[in-house]
Amino acid sequence: MPDPLITLTTDFGDESPYVAAMKGVILGINPVVRLVDLSHRVPPQDLRYAAYFLANALPFFPGGTIHVIVVDPGVGTERALLCVESAGQRLLVPDNGCWTTMIREWGDAPRVVRLTEARYWRQPVSTTFHGRDILAPAAGHLSLGLDPLALGPLTDRWVWLESPDPRPGRNSWIGEVVFIDHFGNLITNISADYLGNPSGPRIRIAIGKHWRRLPWVPSYGHVQPGKLIALLSSSGMLEVAVNQGNAAHRLKAAIGTPVTVSWAR
Amino acid sequence: MPDPLITLTTDFGDESPYVAAMKGVILGINPVVRLVDLSHRVPPQDLRYAAYFLANALPFFPGGTIHVIVVDPGVGTERALLCVESAGQRLLVPDNGCWTTMIREWGDAPRVVRLTEARYWRQPVSTTFHGRDILAPAAGHLSLGLDPLALGPLTDRWVWLESPDPRPGRNSWIGEVVFIDHFGNLITNISADYLGNPSGPRIRIAIGKHWRRLPWVPSYGHVQPGKLIALLSSSGMLEVAVNQGNAAHRLKAAIGTPVTVSWAR
Amino acid sequence: MPDPLITLTTDFGDESPYVAAMKGVILGINPVVRLVDLSHRVPPQDLRYAAYFLANALPFFPGGTIHVIVVDPGVGTERALLCVESAGQRLLVPDNGCWTTMIREWGDAPRVVRLTEARYWRQPVSTTFHGRDILAPAAGHLSLGLDPLALGPLTDRWVWLESPDPRPGRNSWIGEVVFIDHFGNLITNISADYLGNPSGPRIRIAIGKHWRRLPWVPSYGHVQPGKLIALLSSSGMLEVAVNQGNAAHRLKAAIGTPVTVSWAR
Repeated sequence: MPDPLITLTTDFGDESPYVAAMKGVILGINPVVRLVDLSHRVPPQDLRYAAYFLANALPFFPGGTIHVIVVDPGVGTERALLCVESAGQRLLVPDNGCWTTMIREWGDAPRVVRLTEARYWRQPVSTTFHGRDILAPAAGHLSLGLDPLALGPLTDRWVWLESPDPRPGRNSWIGEVVFIDHFGNLITNISADYLGNPSGPRIRIAIGKHWRRLPWVPSYGHVQPGKLIALLSSSGMLEVAVNQGNAAHRLKAAIGTPVTVSWAR
Repeated sequence: MPDPLITLTTDFGDESPYVAAMKGVILGINPVVRLVDLSHRVPPQDLRYAAYFLANALPFFPGGTIHVIVVDPGVGTERALLCVESAGQRLLVPDNGCWTTMIREWGDAPRVVRLTEARYWRQPVSTTFHGRDILAPAAGHLSLGLDPLALGPLTDRWVWLESPDPRPGRNSWIGEVVFIDHFGNLITNISADYLGNPSGPRIRIAIGKHWRRLPWVPSYGHVQPGKLIALLSSSGMLEVAVNQGNAAHRLKAAIGTPVTVSWAR
Repeated sequence: MPDPLITLTTDFGDESPYVAAMKGVILGINPVVRLVDLSHRVPPQDLRYAAYFLANALPFFPGGTIHVIVVDPGVGTERALLCVESAGQRLLVPDNGCWTTMIREWGDAPRVVRLTEARYWRQPVSTTFHGRDILAPAAGHLSLGLDPLALGPLTDRWVWLESPDPRPGRNSWIGEVVFIDHFGNLITNISADYLGNPSGPRIRIAIGKHWRRLPWVPSYGHVQPGKLIALLSSSGMLEVAVNQGNAAHRLKAAIGTPVTVSWAR
């Protein structure tokens, strides 16, 4: 048996001591845990960003991994905290839906427990840092072999996050930008299934209102640096990019910007 | 026995190779070490920031943990380097006081060794990177079981960092902002002990010169997004925040900004 | 035998899910791997930056370490992917030369394999994320004991990255800024060998066109805060810095800015 693996995903940034405190709490409960940072730069309280992040990262991890996720605008209110089991992995996460996009894609019925058993919490429990006081201790105890059912009652109610689906337009599909990566590449919610078979070397795309004909290419380096292109993202979605440049800056696009697409004639 | 745990806290940023070099040096001495990043984004040479960070992160770690701390404006001068043992943990740190705030809170008499034994240093020792050449090797050797007393002589003299205490005003306490987190929340040096029992649902606070009456709430989500609030921080201090917003930007506050507080009538 | 060590160096940033996906893929193949982040903040597609980073970080790691390096402007084109063995370490890296600066300094003849055996790739292989689909799986398989020769054929052809060498001027050496660290310190390509024996306490340096006489000191703290200085960097190169300040901002210098140096009379 390898030593247990606990990943951490937060919006805490990496300059403040919050992530470090959570690591200390976990290792204080189970000193053999291997910690893996996924990201601490989810934009503050941005549940849609967190949902995209988790759906594109967690599926690659092996069964048995425990994921602690702290993007928690509702901390200290009545919102619940959950232990979610799906595809052999376990998530410790506030009940705000950020994990449900990934679960929809897995198509697996999750087993969900509400964290109510205060004996597994760090005392005293603060009102503003449940990552440290409830989620991290729960992860530590699970890594020691605790049955998730010891953490609280099963539940079949939780918050679902709405994921926008593309809708049909006139000879087109209308979607939106759902993610912008570090390079400024625009990832949309329009999957390969909607695009059908490419009918030519170019595709008509409107980012916002302005239509363009973009080369449809396999990857960035197939055009000159600085050129706008359309391609399939590594997650199988329509992506708009600039080779060695920043498409988000160039097109003044943001998460939520409408994207309309049709094959150019 | 779990594999030894060494944490790293620096102001090196994570874009330059300095942190990576330290990790290589440690693993070169003891390849079974488990490394844990605490932060590499302490603002450059900011000892007060480092002091707050350490006091709010290290106490959560288990006994036996080794912490390497490199915030070192005096590198290459006569300032000493120290191995500090307290509460079962060991710190390798420049003698600039950034660790003393935490020690004050622990109330434990530390055992302190000056690092003078050059046989445990990486050779040749640079004049500008003692994190790589002295502190990281010391951590590696300690993780192999070396007695800290082999690293140099015991000392009972070191630099203490001044921590400002709140002072009384007219029916008020006058303190200051001591930390601003990633969300822009303002953490002050005014602890729950100073605030006494809340006498009402609001508290009068001046951040700088402008007085406000703020709702006194358990957590962020108890008010509408965008509202200013006062609350107890997760470390038990007076905190001023904006629900889902950035109080530091809103109030133009910085570390050191005066904060005056009294219960509103 | 310690659990295998795999380091990660990318230009992905740490806010997007790409690094997390690679970690999941590696751990999915070999769950006992210990992952070590070197940096995910190499500037996008900056091969010279990556080359400096690797040359100043990888040599410190112990034999047996596996390094995954993803700075890959040519992803999805005909550029090859390589497994490089040198000094007992293994690198998985696109064939763009970013690793060759380090190899030149090691002076060791590397053994280089082209990654062509698709059976060790994640399927389906995307056209834009070979870090996840080819390099990470290769690292996972190597960590399980796979012979690098199983990954593809040996090759003796690869891209070399040009490293600028200083050239002689009139009683001077003319080089350039090759790295700027988090503190704004300017690291040049002029090594101690070119500087010869210091003939005085000052050195004449032109950063760009403007000549200055700078104190030649062992480290930052030997002058008042805010003063410009010249010193030997921790890697043995001429460095220009401001004690507790940012020399790059002060001198408006960038990577590639010319630097001319001669000992002052």
